[in-house]
Amino acid sequence: MKKLILPNGFMASGIAAGIKPKKKKDMALIVSETPAVSAAVFTTNQVKAAPVKWDIQVVEQKAGARAIVMNSGNANACTGLRGSGDTATMAMRTAEKIHAKPEQIFVCSTGTIGKPMPMEKVSPGIETLIAKLSPDGGKNAAEAMMTTDLVPKSLTVEIEIDGKPVRVTGLAKGSGMIEPNMATMLAFILTDANVEKHALQCALRAATDTTFNRISVDGDQSTNDSVIALANGMADNEVLTYQSEDWSLFFQTLEKLMLELAMMIVRDGEGATKMVTIKVIGGASNGEADEAARAVANSMLNKTAWAGKRPNWGRIMDAIGYSHAQVQEDRVDITYDDVPLVRGGMAYAEASVEDAVKVLSKDEFTIHINLNLGCGEAVVYTCDCTEQYVRINVE
Amino acid sequence: MKKLILPNGFMASGIAAGIKPKKKKDMALIVSETPAVSAAVFTTNQVKAAPVKWDIQVVEQKAGARAIVMNSGNANACTGLRGSGDTATMAMRTAEKIHAKPEQIFVCSTGTIGKPMPMEKVSPGIETLIAKLSPDGGKNAAEAMMTTDLVPKSLTVEIEIDGKPVRVTGLAKGSGMIEPNMATMLAFILTDANVEKHALQCALRAATDTTFNRISVDGDQSTNDSVIALANGMADNEVLTYQSEDWSLFFQTLEKLMLELAMMIVRDGEGATKMVTIKVIGGASNGEADEAARAVANSMLNKTAWAGKRPNWGRIMDAIGYSHAQVQEDRVDITYDDVPLVRGGMAYAEASVEDAVKVLSKDEFTIHINLNLGCGEAVVYTCDCTEQYVRINVE
Repeated sequence: MKKLILPNGFMASGIAAGIKPKKKKDMALIVSETPAVSAAVFTTNQVKAAPVKWDIQVVEQKAGARAIVMNSGNANACTGLRGSGDTATMAMRTAEKIHAKPEQIFVCSTGTIGKPMPMEKVSPGIETLIAKLSPDGGKNAAEAMMTTDLVPKSLTVEIEIDGKPVRVTGLAKGSGMIEPNMATMLAFILTDANVEKHALQCALRAATDTTFNRISVDGDQSTNDSVIALANGMADNEVLTYQSEDWSLFFQTLEKLMLELAMMIVRDGEGATKMVTIKVIGGASNGEADEAARAVANSMLNKTAWAGKRPNWGRIMDAIGYSHAQVQEDRVDITYDDVPLVRGGMAYAEASVEDAVKVLSKDEFTIHINLNLGCGEAVVYTCDCTEQYVRINVE
Repeated sequence: MKKLILPNGFMASGIAAGIKPKKKKDMALIVSETPAVSAAVFTTNQVKAAPVKWDIQVVEQKAGARAIVMNSGNANACTGLRGSGDTATMAMRTAEKIHAKPEQIFVCSTGTIGKPMPMEKVSPGIETLIAKLSPDGGKNAAEAMMTTDLVPKSLTVEIEIDGKPVRVTGLAKGSGMIEPNMATMLAFILTDANVEKHALQCALRAATDTTFNRISVDGDQSTNDSVIALANGMADNEVLTYQSEDWSLFFQTLEKLMLELAMMIVRDGEGATKMVTIKVIGGASNGEADEAARAVANSMLNKTAWAGKRPNWGRIMDAIGYSHAQVQEDRVDITYDDVPLVRGGMAYAEASVEDAVKVLSKDEFTIHINLNLGCGEAVVYTCDCTEQYVRINVE
């Protein structure tokens, strides 16, 4: 696991409250000593889980956020008024204990849809979480976020802003139901930097678009996805705005951290054995390049071909052909890492299948697609699909 | 296998020409004694195989079609000018032998994309196909159409039109890369009815929309899909037009036959163990109901849940939520066959999971989704996804 240190003024904990079987950790709490500037990006699914509806309000309020309380094992989605009540209860119980208002508490849930929250386990769970809060609790919190994830996902980057040391820490979970537009995925970004709220919201939105919204595991978007950022200002730097000298350093750090977390999610995609980067250039527009890249990334026939190490580029031609991108068959070039396989829409005369199989045998490779129509570009990060994906999801 | 009798004036053959390994049948020929009125519907993929480009011309010509020559094992797609030449050669060789013009010959190919056609096998194959032509050759032709299909797919319906006995016979292949808009799939509809060309084309298009375009195996559309109809008029009925008394009988027969072939394709979907019908009502429009139905049908999480016999309706709520259909969460009702599981977007209080598992244990069942927003309706036929699908496609 990569370095995980909470920024100054943050504490965390993660415990097994009994929501998940086998005593697996299933609740986490992150608390900021002082009210933090918050920003958030949520699922675009029309069916939104109760905690998402709650958090949409929390991020709007002025008082500053104090905590994120979360559980795995139950999504608290499609649970009606009872679900909304349970979310509010989680916020209230947490707020009480840390002397905050309920509207300062973000709530996140992930897991099965449609089952009532087992509040008889959640409520005592919150007590335990409070008791276990610690500046070193990040690791436990990251573990409690996991559902079908095989590894916890977290990362800390340290920079200097306005002459002050600043930490940016991210914790995330995948790992199925991952689609470009940010599907079942939670990510919490914590920093002790002092950041203006509007700037933080715009930075989070922009960085989400180039990171979490660029990954795809199975094309399914969830009801619960949330990326939440808390900036508590403990680093005591001059408040960061677009005009700050260090703004671009801060933004690039945020984006880089989020990209690394996104890569961790793809690498740990359900049943995945390799990470595949789809780079499309030469699209009629960026949007069209994106359509082509996503069609390739989400095609089961491509995902299974990669799993089988088969340089079956015909399935790529097929996918871009039915995508919404404009495609002119006889202009398409396809290259696996540095091995050209398709030129002008046909098998490259000097293509080496052996070299292509070598590329496909790697844990990570890039498929370069040039549509040769314009200047549109896009990149999507995805993974292969093995029998293991099916085994996980028939359960 | 269901009854298969070729209509009067048709002969067929199917042989192993050596394109596929293991001496599997891989070429088929269907010949009409007399020039037949033809109609066709082709893939909407922008990347079209050489034979599709050829057939688009054939269906436009006035002289009447005489034959369909087809091969499995090689798609002749992404093969450039050489591919076009090979298709023309297949048509010319066939035409020569049956005293027809090349433009009277439909050519179909299905199989791997991007490899040159092994013409040294195809050309002698055509000679053998000609030699083996027989009024009883339909079965062999249906077998030669198979790729990953486990069973050949064909059906004959006999009706009386204008007092004359008429046969309508269909032959089809699936079974992966099947998406609504008619993906890797070939279907040949043969009839001895006498039908006006424009009426036949409109009937075929309309019937394709309600049959082959309603099925989905894996959401991938192919470069080669073709539905081709030949009507040779040997039944000697008065020419059928929209105005004919028997028009609706003919159209309904065609549609019913095509629906049965479509169902055969879904039941034989790669790795499928069950056929699932998704019926959406109450959509804001038919188009929106269709979007919702397709999102559910194409979701890997739903397909795997069905394979695992899990009444995981949360995945259905999730899929309709991210579909392009307007959805109001608290209005959605979901029923598995006659077992209600969701009412008003939440678990139905008296839902019987046991009964739902019984439904999911059947080979075929229907998921009824009521969006309760308007009068829009749609139906999509799909199948589950098992590890076997992945095993087939990593090869």
